[in-house]
Amino acid sequence: MGKIFMKGKNGHILYEPGQTLMETLLQEGVFINNSCNGKGTCGKCKVRVLEGYENVYSPSEQRLLRKEEQEENIRLACLLVPEGDIRIELLEEETKHEILTEGTIPQFDFSPEITEKTVCIQKPGLADQTPFEEQIKQQLDLPEMSLSTLRKIGKGEGLYRAVTHRKQLLNLQELPTSEKLYGVAVDIGTTTVAACLVDLATGIELAQAAVINEQKQYGLDVLTRITYEIENPQEGRNRLRQAITASLDKQIRQMCAEAGIDSDSVYEITISANSTMLHMFLGVNAVSLGTSPFAPVFTAGRYLSAADTGLKTAENAVVYLLPAVSSYIGADIVAGAYVCGLQRTNRRVLFIDIGTNGEIVLASGGRLLSCSCAAGPALEGMNIRSGMRAAEGAVEDVRLTPEGAELNVIGGGKAKGFCGSGILAVIRELLKNGLIEKNGTLLKPEKLDDSDWRKKFLQLNGKKREVVLAPELIVTQSDIRQVQLAKGAILSGFYALLKQAGITMEDLDEVIVAGQFGMHLPVESLTGTGILPKEVGNRLTYVGNSSKTGAYMALMSGSVKREMEKLAKKMEYMELSASQGYERLFSQCLQF
Amino acid sequence: MGKIFMKGKNGHILYEPGQTLMETLLQEGVFINNSCNGKGTCGKCKVRVLEGYENVYSPSEQRLLRKEEQEENIRLACLLVPEGDIRIELLEEETKHEILTEGTIPQFDFSPEITEKTVCIQKPGLADQTPFEEQIKQQLDLPEMSLSTLRKIGKGEGLYRAVTHRKQLLNLQELPTSEKLYGVAVDIGTTTVAACLVDLATGIELAQAAVINEQKQYGLDVLTRITYEIENPQEGRNRLRQAITASLDKQIRQMCAEAGIDSDSVYEITISANSTMLHMFLGVNAVSLGTSPFAPVFTAGRYLSAADTGLKTAENAVVYLLPAVSSYIGADIVAGAYVCGLQRTNRRVLFIDIGTNGEIVLASGGRLLSCSCAAGPALEGMNIRSGMRAAEGAVEDVRLTPEGAELNVIGGGKAKGFCGSGILAVIRELLKNGLIEKNGTLLKPEKLDDSDWRKKFLQLNGKKREVVLAPELIVTQSDIRQVQLAKGAILSGFYALLKQAGITMEDLDEVIVAGQFGMHLPVESLTGTGILPKEVGNRLTYVGNSSKTGAYMALMSGSVKREMEKLAKKMEYMELSASQGYERLFSQCLQF
Repeated sequence: MGKIFMKGKNGHILYEPGQTLMETLLQEGVFINNSCNGKGTCGKCKVRVLEGYENVYSPSEQRLLRKEEQEENIRLACLLVPEGDIRIELLEEETKHEILTEGTIPQFDFSPEITEKTVCIQKPGLADQTPFEEQIKQQLDLPEMSLSTLRKIGKGEGLYRAVTHRKQLLNLQELPTSEKLYGVAVDIGTTTVAACLVDLATGIELAQAAVINEQKQYGLDVLTRITYEIENPQEGRNRLRQAITASLDKQIRQMCAEAGIDSDSVYEITISANSTMLHMFLGVNAVSLGTSPFAPVFTAGRYLSAADTGLKTAENAVVYLLPAVSSYIGADIVAGAYVCGLQRTNRRVLFIDIGTNGEIVLASGGRLLSCSCAAGPALEGMNIRSGMRAAEGAVEDVRLTPEGAELNVIGGGKAKGFCGSGILAVIRELLKNGLIEKNGTLLKPEKLDDSDWRKKFLQLNGKKREVVLAPELIVTQSDIRQVQLAKGAILSGFYALLKQAGITMEDLDEVIVAGQFGMHLPVESLTGTGILPKEVGNRLTYVGNSSKTGAYMALMSGSVKREMEKLAKKMEYMELSASQGYERLFSQCLQF
Repeated sequence: MGKIFMKGKNGHILYEPGQTLMETLLQEGVFINNSCNGKGTCGKCKVRVLEGYENVYSPSEQRLLRKEEQEENIRLACLLVPEGDIRIELLEEETKHEILTEGTIPQFDFSPEITEKTVCIQKPGLADQTPFEEQIKQQLDLPEMSLSTLRKIGKGEGLYRAVTHRKQLLNLQELPTSEKLYGVAVDIGTTTVAACLVDLATGIELAQAAVINEQKQYGLDVLTRITYEIENPQEGRNRLRQAITASLDKQIRQMCAEAGIDSDSVYEITISANSTMLHMFLGVNAVSLGTSPFAPVFTAGRYLSAADTGLKTAENAVVYLLPAVSSYIGADIVAGAYVCGLQRTNRRVLFIDIGTNGEIVLASGGRLLSCSCAAGPALEGMNIRSGMRAAEGAVEDVRLTPEGAELNVIGGGKAKGFCGSGILAVIRELLKNGLIEKNGTLLKPEKLDDSDWRKKFLQLNGKKREVVLAPELIVTQSDIRQVQLAKGAILSGFYALLKQAGITMEDLDEVIVAGQFGMHLPVESLTGTGILPKEVGNRLTYVGNSSKTGAYMALMSGSVKREMEKLAKKMEYMELSASQGYERLFSQCLQF
C-alpha cells in the first residue's frame, strides 16, 4: 500500500500497487478528466507531480504534453503507476458547470396521469360483508388493486385518499393527510442530468437540479461507454446503470430537500434521454447501439416502476420513458420535435440538436424526416488541444482584432481553454480574417508580412502550424480538422434531409437549434463556420433544453405522452451511411 | 411374485405378495379411484375379478357392494390381497388426467397459462433497424415487454425461447436450452401446507411435500393468530406472513431437489387456502376477519409476482390466488366446490369440509348457498383432555365391547391419545351403548349394575364423571360438551342451508365430505354422533384434499381459473349468526 497526497487537501489516499493513478483517483471519487477512459490518447488527465515519481516520459506522454508542461513535471494520470508515496497537484478543479434548465415551452393543457380522489370504505354489516377491496375498486373504477395498496387498508371503514395512475392504484392513505402530489421531469444527457421537481396540481416547478452524469468515469461520450460495457461483460452494464440511477437519486433527494417535501410524495418521474442513456438507465444491453447496423433493443415509450429501475428515492413512483425513434434519434429528439410542434406544423421546419452527434429533424409536407450525424466531440470542446467543457474559465466567444484576441470567458476570470462555442468562434474569426483556407488548411505564417496584425496569431510548432491566442490557448491544425469534420457531418445531414424531402434551403421557414451547446452559440458562429448555411441565419430560433421541456410536458399530461408516441412512430429515420451519394455530399460539405 | 392380467390390456403386472391389489395398481400407474385412500370405507375402487380369487366377501365389502355387484364378482381393490395369478377387469376407465396422488379429480382439459414459444430476432440491417423489442412483441403478440425480459436480450439476432403468461413475457433465453416448464399447486391449511410440483407440459406430479404451517408458533387456529396480529401491531403481520412464505419456500426447494430441477424453472404457483391464510400470506390486515361483522379486505382471485409476495425461491414465478367468497368461505371451499362440479350440477348436493370451522355449500335449484359453522377445534383433537393431532399413536377408531375397548391406532403402536376421528368414535360408541344421554350428560356410574360390562368404562374424578379406556385415554364430560358444540354447529348449519333452499334432507342426492379430517372418518362416526343426519349415511362420498386438487386444476388451466372466479361470485354466503331463528335451531341440534 502506498499513499497519495494532494496539494490543498487534507489526509491522503491509500492505493494498491499496480493501479494507475487515474484508477485510484476515480475510485476515491476525485474528479479527473478521463475523456478517453484511460486509454492514454486524449491527454486530458494532467496532474503535476510534486514529489515521489520521476520516471522518464513515455512516448505517449511526450506526444500529448508540451515541452513546458514536461518541464513543470506535468504527467498523465492514466499512464502513471505510482510505486511509493507520491504528492501531486490536481490541475483541473471540478468546477460548477453551467447547465441549462430553462427552455421555451408551448402552451398545453395540464392533465397529469397521477390523480387523487377520496374513497369511503363503508362500515360492513353481518348482512353485507362486501370486501373492502371491492368497495374501493368500484368507487375508483379500477380493474384491480396492487398488493402494496391492499396492504394499506387498515382497520377497514373510513375515508381514504387514493392516488391513482391511469387504472392503477399507487397509494392509499387514511385521511386526513396533507400530502400533495409531485413529479419529477428528467433529461439524462450524456454529460449532464438535468431535472426539475414539479407540483402536479399546479405545474409549478419547485426546484431544479443539474448534476454531472456519474457515468463520466466510464468515458465522456456514448461510444466510449458502450466500449466499456463491451470490455466488462460481467459488471459493466450494471455499473453504468447504477451510475445514472445514483445521479438521479441524488438529484431527487436534493430537490425534495430544497422544496421541503418527502420524496415518497413523488409519484411520477418522466425521463427523456438519447437512446444510449435510455438503454443504460434500464440496464439493457447497449452494445448493438454502438456497432453497425446500430439496431436498438427498444425504442417504445414505456411505464416502469421506479423500484424496478433501481431508483432508491421515490421507489414507489411510476417512471415513464419517453419514446425514441432509433439508436441515434432518441427520446431527447422526439421531445424536442414535440416541444417545437413539428407533429402538427404546416410550415417547413428544420430542428437541430448539436452535441457529439448532431440530430436533425425536418418537417415538410406532412412528413418528418430525421437523421443523425457523427459530429464527434469537437463541438463540445473535446479532442481539442486546449478544449474543455462549458465550465468556469472556458472561452465561449472570441474576436480577433489588430489589438489582439478579445476573449469572452465563462465566469469572467482567467481563460483556461475553449469550450465548444469558443473553438467555433476562433475558427469563425480565422475564416473571416483569411487565416484558414477553404480546404481547412492554416495559412503558413511566412505568407504574411511581419507588419500584418494577423501574423502574431500564427506560429510553428516544429513543422506544425498553430494558432496562439495566449500561452494556454492554442488551436492546432488538427483541432481545425476536428471541427471541419463536425461541420461536414452536420451540413451534409442537413442537405441530405432537404434532398430527401425534395425541397431547398430557400423553402425552409424556420431552423430551430436545441440543446445546451446551441444556447451558448451566436448565430454568426454557426453560419460563419458553415455548420449551417448562411442563408438560414435570419431564420434561426433557439429552443433551449427541449428534451427536459418535453419530459416536463409528458409529466403534466397523459395526452402529451400519447402524442409523443405517435410522433415517434411517424418520424422516419434515414441512416446517412446507407444513403446513396452521401460520401460525395459529405466531402463537398467539408469545404469551408 | 404373482401376476395381474387386465382385460383389454397387453402384458401383465408383477406384484409382491401381501400387497393389496389397489397398492399394486397405483404403484404401476394404473388408475383406480381411491377416494378414501385405501381405507375400505368409500367403496369406490371396484374391480371385477375374472379369474384367480374367490375369497368370501368381508363385512366391509358386503356393506359397500350391492347384492348384484357381489353376484358379478365385483370386489374392492383395497381389500383384495391376491395370492396367485389373477385376471381382473377395470370398471372405471382411466380418465386421462388422474394424476394427483390424493383426492378425486374430475376430467378437464389442460391449458396452462404458462406457455413457451420460439422467437427469432432477425439480423438487422442499416436500412432496417427495427428494435429487437418490436420483433419479439410482434411475433408473440404482446402489448409490452417487462424490464427483466428486455434485459435478457443479448447481442440481438438469434433464436430465443420465450416463456409467456397470458399477454406477459416472463422469460427469454437464448436457444438451445433444455429447461422445461414447471408449476406448483399449494393448499395452505391452517395446520399443514400441502403442495405438489407439476410438469406443466404433461400435468404429471413430480413431487409432493407437506409441512407444518410455521405459523403454528403464533397459535393453532386462525382466531389465535388474528389475535396475535392485533396484539403485535408493528411486527405481527409481517411475522405471520414470513412464517407462511418460509414454509412454502422450503417446500418448493425440497420438491425441486427431489425432482432434480432448478427452482427458476417454476413459472407459476397457484394457491388455495382459507381467507385468513390468504390475507396472512399476502401480509394484508386480517383483523377484520376475526371481528364482527367479519368483512374481508379482499376475496377476488388475483395474479401477483412471487417476488412481491416475499417468496425467495422461484421469485420470478407468477402467483395465482384462488378466489374466495367471504371471510369464512375461502378459496379452499371454492376449490372444493369446483372440484366436485357444483358449478354445473343439476343434482342437489351438499359439500362439507370439516375442520376447526365446518364450511358447507349446498347446490340446489341452480343456486349455491354456503355457510360456515364455528365447530371449534375439538374435531381436530384439540381442547380435548387426551386429544392429539392425527399422527402416529393417535386412536382413530374405537369399539366398546364386553371384552374391553378395541383401539385402532395410527401406525399400529401404543395409543397416545385421541385424534379427531378417535374422539368422535368414542362418543359414537358411548351413544350406541347408552352411556351418554340425549342432552350429552354422561350416565352416573351408580346407575349401572356391577355386572354390566359397560360399567368399567365409567369413573368419577371427584364429582366429575369420566370415561376411561386406558390410563392415558380419558374422555371427560367437558370433552363431550366440546364435541356436542361442534356437532350442534355443523348440523344446524346443515339444516339452515336446507331451509334456505326450501328442501329437506330426503331431497339431497349426495353429501360430499372434503378435507384431511373427513378422510380418516368412517361414515358411522359422522352419522352415529349426529354430526350428519343418519338419513344421508348411504349418500356420503369422500373427496380428499379438494383444496389442493383445485389449486392443481387452476395451475393446469386458465379456463378453470375463470370458472372458479365465476363460481365464487355465484356462491351466496349466509351468515348464520345473522339468520333468523338460528339460535333455536342450534340448541335443537345440540341434542344427540
